[in-house]
Amino acid sequence: MPDTPSKTDTGRHFEDFRLGETLVHGTPRTLTDGDMALYIALTGSRFPLHSAAPVAHAMGLEGRPADELLAFHVGFGKTVNDISLNAVANLGYASVLFPAVVYPGDTLRAESTVIGLRQTSNGSSGIVYVRSVTFNQHGRPVMSWVRWVMVKKRDPAAPAPDTVVPELPDHVPVAQLTVPPRLSARGYDPAVTGSPHLWEDYGAGERIHHVNGMTVDESDHTLATRLYQNNARLHFEAAMMKDSPFGRRLMYGGHVISVCRALTFNGLANAVRIAAINGGTHCHPAFAGDTFYAFTDVLASWPLPGRSDLGALRLRTVGVRDTDTRELTDPMEERDGRRVYRDDVVLDLDYTVLMPRRE
Amino acid sequence: MPDTPSKTDTGRHFEDFRLGETLVHGTPRTLTDGDMALYIALTGSRFPLHSAAPVAHAMGLEGRPADELLAFHVGFGKTVNDISLNAVANLGYASVLFPAVVYPGDTLRAESTVIGLRQTSNGSSGIVYVRSVTFNQHGRPVMSWVRWVMVKKRDPAAPAPDTVVPELPDHVPVAQLTVPPRLSARGYDPAVTGSPHLWEDYGAGERIHHVNGMTVDESDHTLATRLYQNNARLHFEAAMMKDSPFGRRLMYGGHVISVCRALTFNGLANAVRIAAINGGTHCHPAFAGDTFYAFTDVLASWPLPGRSDLGALRLRTVGVRDTDTRELTDPMEERDGRRVYRDDVVLDLDYTVLMPRRE
Amino acid sequence: MPDTPSKTDTGRHFEDFRLGETLVHGTPRTLTDGDMALYIALTGSRFPLHSAAPVAHAMGLEGRPADELLAFHVGFGKTVNDISLNAVANLGYASVLFPAVVYPGDTLRAESTVIGLRQTSNGSSGIVYVRSVTFNQHGRPVMSWVRWVMVKKRDPAAPAPDTVVPELPDHVPVAQLTVPPRLSARGYDPAVTGSPHLWEDYGAGERIHHVNGMTVDESDHTLATRLYQNNARLHFEAAMMKDSPFGRRLMYGGHVISVCRALTFNGLANAVRIAAINGGTHCHPAFAGDTFYAFTDVLASWPLPGRSDLGALRLRTVGVRDTDTRELTDPMEERDGRRVYRDDVVLDLDYTVLMPRRE
Repeated sequence: MPDTPSKTDTGRHFEDFRLGETLVHGTPRTLTDGDMALYIALTGSRFPLHSAAPVAHAMGLEGRPADELLAFHVGFGKTVNDISLNAVANLGYASVLFPAVVYPGDTLRAESTVIGLRQTSNGSSGIVYVRSVTFNQHGRPVMSWVRWVMVKKRDPAAPAPDTVVPELPDHVPVAQLTVPPRLSARGYDPAVTGSPHLWEDYGAGERIHHVNGMTVDESDHTLATRLYQNNARLHFEAAMMKDSPFGRRLMYGGHVISVCRALTFNGLANAVRIAAINGGTHCHPAFAGDTFYAFTDVLASWPLPGRSDLGALRLRTVGVRDTDTRELTDPMEERDGRRVYRDDVVLDLDYTVLMPRRE
Repeated sequence: MPDTPSKTDTGRHFEDFRLGETLVHGTPRTLTDGDMALYIALTGSRFPLHSAAPVAHAMGLEGRPADELLAFHVGFGKTVNDISLNAVANLGYASVLFPAVVYPGDTLRAESTVIGLRQTSNGSSGIVYVRSVTFNQHGRPVMSWVRWVMVKKRDPAAPAPDTVVPELPDHVPVAQLTVPPRLSARGYDPAVTGSPHLWEDYGAGERIHHVNGMTVDESDHTLATRLYQNNARLHFEAAMMKDSPFGRRLMYGGHVISVCRALTFNGLANAVRIAAINGGTHCHPAFAGDTFYAFTDVLASWPLPGRSDLGALRLRTVGVRDTDTRELTDPMEERDGRRVYRDDVVLDLDYTVLMPRRE
Repeated sequence: MPDTPSKTDTGRHFEDFRLGETLVHGTPRTLTDGDMALYIALTGSRFPLHSAAPVAHAMGLEGRPADELLAFHVGFGKTVNDISLNAVANLGYASVLFPAVVYPGDTLRAESTVIGLRQTSNGSSGIVYVRSVTFNQHGRPVMSWVRWVMVKKRDPAAPAPDTVVPELPDHVPVAQLTVPPRLSARGYDPAVTGSPHLWEDYGAGERIHHVNGMTVDESDHTLATRLYQNNARLHFEAAMMKDSPFGRRLMYGGHVISVCRALTFNGLANAVRIAAINGGTHCHPAFAGDTFYAFTDVLASWPLPGRSDLGALRLRTVGVRDTDTRELTDPMEERDGRRVYRDDVVLDLDYTVLMPRRE
């Protein structure tokens, strides 16, 4: 860690990162029923596995698991202080895996390993690639992901490191998807969602408009982001953001993902678990007052090796603000000869879910 | 279920309901201490049985029960997707009963049976009467209620069903009120509320002004309504509601009930449990920014057969916004020769509470 | 209690208090994991002992304790109805002690003893000094504090009581500080916070700027204050406050303390527990929309008798709004020949924390 003039942590700069080093993040966090209730209150999520203990029991689990995204945000939040406090931009993420279930009572802590570094051409910043892992109290990995962020240099004259850019898969292949131990959809009753549509009913090329929308107010996204103990300043400090180009607080992109995932319930109600996030783009920043709507394209439908109870669907969910998704056939448009995201598009998420099959 | 062109649920229309059919609602929900903490944060409720485990134990229960209204809203929320997604208006409810206690850890699911149908005269919609029941994980009914909603027709030319209008009691008679098994007020110590007033101290004709008010902001009512997994769009979508006659999101009427019940603590602190809701009217829609005040008229005082520890009070609580209730003698006024609710009246609730007696 | 014309409690006035009397406050409250999750969501607190069960276990506790301030606010909230409903001003507090840990599942109730009375010179109000104690369900004191409030008289002609003003210590002396039974920092690993700074690293005269800020919106502070079942009207009633000199709702000062304490994590991360609050001033009222920043002066560093694992730091944390604390060397300024708090200063808190020592 660099020598700081005070006890206050102002975050790492690009030249503080070393290829291969592992950062152990502070503030382990025990998740409880309290966090799960708040997650429902903040997102309106209705997915049955996270909502009802009997559904979880019927699917072989010992109790309601925490929503994959709740656990993800908590793990991600731990990494902010060491990775992205001086980020210019969160550029992307890939290979988000959920190998094990998180239960209320579990304690999450996180570590990140620097797997790539590339100074930007003007020398004022650089891109840091990290692979982060969230462990439970038994030391078992429950999530892992790669993300890359552009981080400011403290001293523009600091020497550039050797450029190493990790090769990242376009998506998590079926063989790498994990179904948590004991999770089974044998005997799954779609009455728990009210939707009769199961894995066989979805096919690549299908588009689903999720109809419902959700307005997010300032307290909603700041409560969520504080719950995750994410301390990125731009979500919280109206006084500071007043003088930014945005003029106000930015919403944590993860909250946009959570709200959009909750909206997909209407049309994908039996997508009981996120198995992987293949990649995602926060196309435009989101702000309090935005009403989010979403549509989903089914990108692929995969059986899971050796399983007849569950299949996988690779999905692309596009989140927009203040727009009826049925009026939007393409989230991108031509501008000055380039294809760019429309101004009302806030999220383009590529992920894979597990869904019960017909037997 | 009607044949839908997509996997998205856009709700039932009037012609989709059949007299006598039972709809099993999706998304069972496990209530926990997390929901109970949120309920207090959202309403400010101070009723002792829901607030403190030792009070619950002293009254014979195995632990703190969930607030009757918290459990009601969760059960009610389940029914929205199948009953009232295309409602023009929620017209009323009756015979709301709370036969058993809901504890943290219990899982609630709901069913509704169509008990009446009446097409409106212009043929564009119809009134659906349902009796809904919420069951816990043991299959035991913990709540039941009748409500009637005006639902749009998809096809105005669809034939009208035979008119059947159920007979609904003006109020739940004493004989139908249930005291949960084991609940006893023997030895109840009013020090747990700080109010010395018990059942004997209240008499029909008495009016109580509850003094305190509560302003509800957007995040408050939307957090509450999401917590209940109620997915009625008009509470959540500012973008859609901007073009409605209201110009903004409507507050879930159930949240108004909860806030008003919490306000009644000042004057009715020992009303330890709601035994029934006889009926209620959401006189005017409520919006974020409204400050609610309430007064209560005692309509009747009933001993409970065979019990000397608890009595029942039938109450009428009127909720108003931005008005000192002492300035309001009558919630109704004459307008164009008709008696209508004043514009500042948002709730007129007729319900029955249990209150410890002197011994 | 005075004879009231109605069942509604409008609070005690100055002449209702008797020296030496003990008031038993209503509404005991069971704290749970739900309250702890909400506390994190409302404040963003990251202190490790309250955040992670394994940290608490490693420090000898049976589980995560509730944040000292969460427990304090709940206890304080209970006293409002009997002490300060008719307060003109909350003048101060002193000797806030935390002799025992509060765990989820514990139930708190509170009592206050009148230890001083002094009528103000114009006879329209008086200062009431109370010592309040919060007990857990085993009757064990878990907190105690002295506060003094100026309370209106109902009848200005009511006779003045004998003036008794308790002597209050400038600060809680080391000998009165308690370390909860079994709490040990032997083997404390600063990796749980990510900050390497321990007790030995802090010295009197040091100033720490905490960098991060936090904007508080209406729903944030009202959710917090309702969670604590504090029923002081001026936090909740926009309709009433519109006509006050403030024009809007006042934020509960305790929420300002909680947010500022959470901000101090950046610089004082290993301050694992508040041992005492020596005194505090809410220099100016705070409102929704304010962004709080804080700096801390280390006032003293004390070893604890007989302990080599933990030391105490006496701190002064100053909370300001919408101001970078580095631009503010003195929270006070000269105005009309008097030294007064700058308009942007909202909190001046003198308190003592426990921090692990190097071994």
